[in-house]
Amino acid sequence: MAKQYYSPRNLKFLLHEVFNAKELTNLHHYKDHDNASFDMVIDAARQIADNILHPAYIEMDTNEPQLKDNKITVHPAVKAYLKAMGDAGMIGATYSYADGGQQLPNLVQVAVSYILSAANNGATMYTGLSAGAGRLIASFATQELKDKYLPKMLAGTWQGTMGLTEPHAGSSLSDITSSAKLTETGAYKIKGQKIFISAGDHDCAENIIHLTLARIEGAPKGTKGISLFIVPKFREENGKFVDNDVITAGIYHKMGQKSTPAIHFIAGDKDNCEGWLVGEANQGLKYMFQMMNEARIGVGLMGAAIASAAYYASLEYAHERPQGRSLMEKDAKNAPQTKIINHPDVRRMLLLQKAISEGGLGLTMEAARYADLSEASANQEDKEKYFLLLDLLTPIVKTFPAEHGIRSVSEGMQVLGGYGYCKDFPLEQMARDIRITTIYEGTTGIQSQDLLGRKITMQNGKAVMLLAQEIMQTIQEATAFDDLKKYSETLQKELGRLQQVIQHLVPFAMKGEYNLFLADANLFMELASLIVVSWQWLKQAIVAQKAILSNNPQGDELSFYESKIHTMKFYFAYELPKTKSYATRLLDTDVLTLTTEKELIF
Amino acid sequence: MAKQYYSPRNLKFLLHEVFNAKELTNLHHYKDHDNASFDMVIDAARQIADNILHPAYIEMDTNEPQLKDNKITVHPAVKAYLKAMGDAGMIGATYSYADGGQQLPNLVQVAVSYILSAANNGATMYTGLSAGAGRLIASFATQELKDKYLPKMLAGTWQGTMGLTEPHAGSSLSDITSSAKLTETGAYKIKGQKIFISAGDHDCAENIIHLTLARIEGAPKGTKGISLFIVPKFREENGKFVDNDVITAGIYHKMGQKSTPAIHFIAGDKDNCEGWLVGEANQGLKYMFQMMNEARIGVGLMGAAIASAAYYASLEYAHERPQGRSLMEKDAKNAPQTKIINHPDVRRMLLLQKAISEGGLGLTMEAARYADLSEASANQEDKEKYFLLLDLLTPIVKTFPAEHGIRSVSEGMQVLGGYGYCKDFPLEQMARDIRITTIYEGTTGIQSQDLLGRKITMQNGKAVMLLAQEIMQTIQEATAFDDLKKYSETLQKELGRLQQVIQHLVPFAMKGEYNLFLADANLFMELASLIVVSWQWLKQAIVAQKAILSNNPQGDELSFYESKIHTMKFYFAYELPKTKSYATRLLDTDVLTLTTEKELIF
Repeated sequence: MAKQYYSPRNLKFLLHEVFNAKELTNLHHYKDHDNASFDMVIDAARQIADNILHPAYIEMDTNEPQLKDNKITVHPAVKAYLKAMGDAGMIGATYSYADGGQQLPNLVQVAVSYILSAANNGATMYTGLSAGAGRLIASFATQELKDKYLPKMLAGTWQGTMGLTEPHAGSSLSDITSSAKLTETGAYKIKGQKIFISAGDHDCAENIIHLTLARIEGAPKGTKGISLFIVPKFREENGKFVDNDVITAGIYHKMGQKSTPAIHFIAGDKDNCEGWLVGEANQGLKYMFQMMNEARIGVGLMGAAIASAAYYASLEYAHERPQGRSLMEKDAKNAPQTKIINHPDVRRMLLLQKAISEGGLGLTMEAARYADLSEASANQEDKEKYFLLLDLLTPIVKTFPAEHGIRSVSEGMQVLGGYGYCKDFPLEQMARDIRITTIYEGTTGIQSQDLLGRKITMQNGKAVMLLAQEIMQTIQEATAFDDLKKYSETLQKELGRLQQVIQHLVPFAMKGEYNLFLADANLFMELASLIVVSWQWLKQAIVAQKAILSNNPQGDELSFYESKIHTMKFYFAYELPKTKSYATRLLDTDVLTLTTEKELIF
Repeated sequence: MAKQYYSPRNLKFLLHEVFNAKELTNLHHYKDHDNASFDMVIDAARQIADNILHPAYIEMDTNEPQLKDNKITVHPAVKAYLKAMGDAGMIGATYSYADGGQQLPNLVQVAVSYILSAANNGATMYTGLSAGAGRLIASFATQELKDKYLPKMLAGTWQGTMGLTEPHAGSSLSDITSSAKLTETGAYKIKGQKIFISAGDHDCAENIIHLTLARIEGAPKGTKGISLFIVPKFREENGKFVDNDVITAGIYHKMGQKSTPAIHFIAGDKDNCEGWLVGEANQGLKYMFQMMNEARIGVGLMGAAIASAAYYASLEYAHERPQGRSLMEKDAKNAPQTKIINHPDVRRMLLLQKAISEGGLGLTMEAARYADLSEASANQEDKEKYFLLLDLLTPIVKTFPAEHGIRSVSEGMQVLGGYGYCKDFPLEQMARDIRITTIYEGTTGIQSQDLLGRKITMQNGKAVMLLAQEIMQTIQEATAFDDLKKYSETLQKELGRLQQVIQHLVPFAMKGEYNLFLADANLFMELASLIVVSWQWLKQAIVAQKAILSNNPQGDELSFYESKIHTMKFYFAYELPKTKSYATRLLDTDVLTLTTEKELIF
């Protein structure tokens, strides 16, 4: 197992030097925090990651959850992890004090989740789902329900889940058919089946709390008739916990992320399943989307974290493994083998991984910062501005570290050659683990439709305009440095290319030609991601350049900053030029994937 | 399990309509064959694939080979498969009559291997390795050794392997240290360890014949002192088979292709391992490269075959799975769910898979045809021409279907969403299986160095010139059709782009600046692959266009041909434009991966 799975120095750089976490403490909501408290939380996360998660990473894959007699057994480290996270108050750390949280900024929470996820991505699903489910309760449920569920969920003794998907309704939530019928007690009788429910049952929690979407009898069709319910595995009756007729009917055998069971449950088979309405009737999908946005950022972060772990595992190998001779070796026959890190192609694979994992992490932190500013800013205009920026970035934050993280981990595996394909090293597990990230919480196809179909056009393109201003500000800053000027100009050109594509596509939407508008949304996502991640890299390079010029860093510190600038150059040289090919396609009018040509696929 | 794993119609199209297999029977070597005999062989392959391989595909993954007491047990279907292949004379079908073969053209053998590999890629390793090892014996060993080994290997009772890799010498074969010492009997005492030996031991063969590289005592250093030996697991002594001191020391636990054990063996630990020299001393690497070229084409073919199986599995799902509404649906709320094949993004993923698998298969067949013409042409000039073309294409044939096959299978998985990630469908297994193809028989990095560093420059660029002529001929042909003219012009421009990049890079080699020359060889491979595969697609489109204009096909036949043209357009629109970004990078002189900057990677 590789020794290192993330870089504390890089995390410090992003958190403090690039995103200036301390600035957030000027906002009333975060006023009790300071850099010392942030560092304490991060240190606590590292302890849990080092002591519980990382040592169990491979074991939890090898010994996957077992279903027997409708009960699921998981690796015992899950219990230790949930307890440690509960004890440290880290499951609901971003919640308000009133709801049992610490009002920790999302920006810092991202740093925490990144460490945990790089150590053992699957395990973080347990706490991530509890946090997300709990937040729905915190945001929309009555005080009575909050008091009943939140303390146990945040303590890690009860497990939260998201009950969305049904056998016939995956991405298409409007087709949900689970039903709910009001009873005299105020509870609802729930009937239905849910599939792919992660952490949906296991023996390390005393109760499982499914935040479940269902239709109240007589509700409108489609998305407007869906309500949100708390459906526990055990319900309280006369002070005792009784079985609530939620049966674990199956477990999925997955390619990776085996540490977390994904299950199929049947609720109300004996007509004895009760659920409690969260918030108002028929508002369920709207509520759920709040959690889904958070979850989407979480999935993107998971992609960046796995890519980070793979990067360090392959970097370690590349430093240690001798193989072949350097291209510049004059007397190859008599020279000793060189370390593979000296081969340009290995270096390319390493730099690509670094660019994707650190660029992806930066992007996720940017989104988290927008979330903080949108939640806690004092004035309405700022709140709205940052909300729009967050809303626009969310599908990119979900998609880039997932799609490119898969590539990145695959390159990590390739660095190890045949060994990368074997279980002697963690790369093949990471490759299996990360593959889920383009599917969880809305596939890349769904995210791309969301980005182009909704986010680009919302409020007449206001969010895009705001993002362009943010990017322009970075471009302006970069022009002040001779060494960065060239990259600043490139990015400005690329921004123009993006605008050109948008101006080409949006008129189709205005004419109602949604098929022409959205057919290649996936390529638009690639184009936008390249530009947004390049912006993040230029931002990191500016901070590094400033530090070199003003702090006179030496040794490792100087190398750290130089490496940031170098990786930015690498991304601009090897990745950013791909915008040309995507733009070529997006500006072409010969659409080849439209639905009238079914017969053309054999 | 998906019903279909390959398309017989497409195979017929490529074999007969595009590559005109019958034409080969004009050559003396293939004169006993005709289309009927080709079809018989293909039909036999399909029987074996349908009856033995395909039904065992998932089981062989679930029940992976076990090592116990230095013995390896594999799935019993392996025995049935080896026997069926031996009985049908299909292990050494391309061998000469004298060596026990059928003088089957490589072109037809590719069709056979494609069917077998699409049905169960891992299982074909057993026969592929026997065929490759046997060919080394057939080509270079004495008649005595041939008589001893070939009949049993071709009958499927003895297993052949390739013993190249050692713990410290993977890609770098010049560092091999296994040793050989001549004894009085003419046999050599062998000592050494080999790792990653596929099919290196199992209970479905009576003997294992390792074609092993080792150094004869006193041989020159480096590549020029390596010899090739037959090292059997059991050797004959006085008419009896005795243990030859080849110990199975370990088995690798792989991400995929679990049907075939990859083992670690130790030879001569008790100083009792004998080997027999094949051919001349110190010529081992040269001999081995002959087999490796064949094996490289085999690996590329495996990539195309797995991509094909994944394509049909995801196509079947896309036809059956309802989800969401069509983008053009006006009354979405009341409309029934549409099949996912009607979503443009799903269609894009399907077309990409089709383009990669069928384009990759076509490319492999082209190489096989070159191999046939080079082997069997009557005049020396033709032999040399086709040998150069084959030699140039080999690294691309190895790499394109592997690298892009991985992408392709991943898109197949993505079509299925969450189900694609689960073992209920074969996609996740295919994704694990195909991942090895960029590593087997020389990684993509090695292939790229070979392409740019050796093949492009050999004989002052003669091979490139010949390939350009072949491509130009297709371009000329396409201009005769109004509907193809546009694509013919595009390809011509792209060919110019390739030449421009070559002219930019080769001068570095001439100045001895190999680091500048080869640093981005991997990107050059991408660039060359895009152009070569586009050429293959244009070739297929021409044949389809001709058939539509002259045969007046109807119904499915018409759709088949139209689909070919459509997929060519898709490849030109979605993939080919990527040349721009690779060329941008390759023409840039700011090299960022050179070995002087070790400190820049943190």
